[in-house]
Amino acid sequence: MSETSASPFDNVRAVTWNDGRLQLLDQRRLPDRAVYLEYQDPIDVADAIRDMVVRGAPAIGITAAYAVVLAAKQAYLEGADKWRILIEAAMEKLAAARPTAVNLHWALKRMQALFPGIEGDPEPVLLAAARAIHDEDIAANQAMGKAGAALLGESKAVLTHCNTGSLATGGFGTALGVIRAARQAGYLEMVYVDETRPWLQGSRLTAWELMQDKIPVTLLTDSAAGYLMSQGSIQWVIVGADRVAANGDVANKIGTYGLAVAARHHAVKMMVVAPCSSFDLDTPSGDLIPVEDRGPDEILQFNGRQIAPGGVPAWNPVFDITPAALIDVIVTEKGVIETPDRQKIAAVLA
Amino acid sequence: MSETSASPFDNVRAVTWNDGRLQLLDQRRLPDRAVYLEYQDPIDVADAIRDMVVRGAPAIGITAAYAVVLAAKQAYLEGADKWRILIEAAMEKLAAARPTAVNLHWALKRMQALFPGIEGDPEPVLLAAARAIHDEDIAANQAMGKAGAALLGESKAVLTHCNTGSLATGGFGTALGVIRAARQAGYLEMVYVDETRPWLQGSRLTAWELMQDKIPVTLLTDSAAGYLMSQGSIQWVIVGADRVAANGDVANKIGTYGLAVAARHHAVKMMVVAPCSSFDLDTPSGDLIPVEDRGPDEILQFNGRQIAPGGVPAWNPVFDITPAALIDVIVTEKGVIETPDRQKIAAVLA
Repeated sequence: MSETSASPFDNVRAVTWNDGRLQLLDQRRLPDRAVYLEYQDPIDVADAIRDMVVRGAPAIGITAAYAVVLAAKQAYLEGADKWRILIEAAMEKLAAARPTAVNLHWALKRMQALFPGIEGDPEPVLLAAARAIHDEDIAANQAMGKAGAALLGESKAVLTHCNTGSLATGGFGTALGVIRAARQAGYLEMVYVDETRPWLQGSRLTAWELMQDKIPVTLLTDSAAGYLMSQGSIQWVIVGADRVAANGDVANKIGTYGLAVAARHHAVKMMVVAPCSSFDLDTPSGDLIPVEDRGPDEILQFNGRQIAPGGVPAWNPVFDITPAALIDVIVTEKGVIETPDRQKIAAVLA
Repeated sequence: MSETSASPFDNVRAVTWNDGRLQLLDQRRLPDRAVYLEYQDPIDVADAIRDMVVRGAPAIGITAAYAVVLAAKQAYLEGADKWRILIEAAMEKLAAARPTAVNLHWALKRMQALFPGIEGDPEPVLLAAARAIHDEDIAANQAMGKAGAALLGESKAVLTHCNTGSLATGGFGTALGVIRAARQAGYLEMVYVDETRPWLQGSRLTAWELMQDKIPVTLLTDSAAGYLMSQGSIQWVIVGADRVAANGDVANKIGTYGLAVAARHHAVKMMVVAPCSSFDLDTPSGDLIPVEDRGPDEILQFNGRQIAPGGVPAWNPVFDITPAALIDVIVTEKGVIETPDRQKIAAVLA
């Protein structure tokens, strides 16, 4: 792992493959500094996912796919005839890095499915597959952006939560892709962004991305969202997803559920933008999705400084579950699913 | 103004009168340090209210009352025969310190009403009046604590927002007084506390007060409250008020409204605990209450460090309005008002 610096105003890419090395933009240090970390060891990549150097369900999936390339290369060097066995430890470590976003497991499974058919050096085949996952994600985001923007009609302002932009995906973004596409089409006067405690993805990442694109942005605390809606200031809440269950329940950044409840109360529409790689048809409903608890430190400390009394217990679930009944539409690259349910989802994803 | 230090585990008093000086616990520095600032100049006290050395609607009212004593003393020294004129500038500065909490104006009016009847040195009469305001507040909190706790029944856990304890009042607290009284009566297994962005009153102040009282506390981000409710973890949301309009609409810390919306969605009960000094019968409804916007810095910076891209616009209303229809009960020292409306409020406050 090595470190290089770049202007924060370069074209943003969270994940890049560069001459045999995986390059990740260190999102813990944004917006102060844009530092790129380079990886050659898949175990270091698993740590990077866990420690949130890279975050965002699709970006984690793409990162894991490239990490499989690194792992296979390493395993093949160690033993060309038994790399499929030697790679297993790294595959398990990657799978365990974070529990909620399903894209991670989806990408690992897709890569793993290629193993039996590979002859000789696995790197070329797997790198092509990882690149395909990456490219497909960007293409999916472009398609979802167009489809989602078409739903916004004459909407003047929307609220988004967490970060779902280039930093969270292969590029362009899911919910932020819809916002970008809407602006490109000449719509939307204001994008409101929740700061998104505890990790401040909204303040640090989404505000930064929107400012780079010169899209009008207003930041607010998470708890001001209800008051914003009561004033009639927004027409849509637009969010991404870390996992969509077979029935349309959505796991996403903590606070999404509260926004959905408030949106329904105010007749504000709720849009979830999620590529097919975020759907988990093996999980029947949201209550069965594992919700990651990242422990108290993210709440008790800020930049290493204590912001709560020492030793106070804290509950830090970093995702919550929004039931399908509170979602007006899920946008996928294969089509738009209004008032989602099991049948409609199965039909679109088939 | 001078500074003294004390153990954070002393008995907490936000406001004390000490031998001709007003002493305020500097709440900007909690829980790191318990520093008491001493004031002799009423203009400095107005600044202290504006800058949140002291906060919490009842505590601001009490502070303002003592500040009138300081102002009268100063004015009387400057001109014994025209102190009622000389005091006016300080009265105006105090009234303008913060706009939303009505207790500030209530206390100033109550003190001012004594001016015409005073003969000679105004200090003794006004100090007695300020002390009465302070003592009455503590007594009101004790009465509300008892009345509110009686409503909780077998409730095992509650959620509170912001700080409504000894730090926000003359002592004991409003919403936190109810929680204290319930624990004293042997009820409540857990008190959940929202961190309360942007000023973190929940993390910094409420968690600190509850830990000092050995009341079980769990801290969470503001946006996790909806998820907490969806898990059936709490039976009540209990909050204070900065101003209650004649129809029962409540201005309180930003986020209160969102909690009320979520509470109603989950059939969790919503309790507002507010002394009569927080009611403003001259304001017919909540939409007429001025809501303070404290500007972007509280959102963009933390401990002087930038946490969002430079120059990003932010919206920082620090209060919101919860309509009476979302409130199950308002507890006052004169009685409990269930499903509050104009008539019931007028009857109890009469």
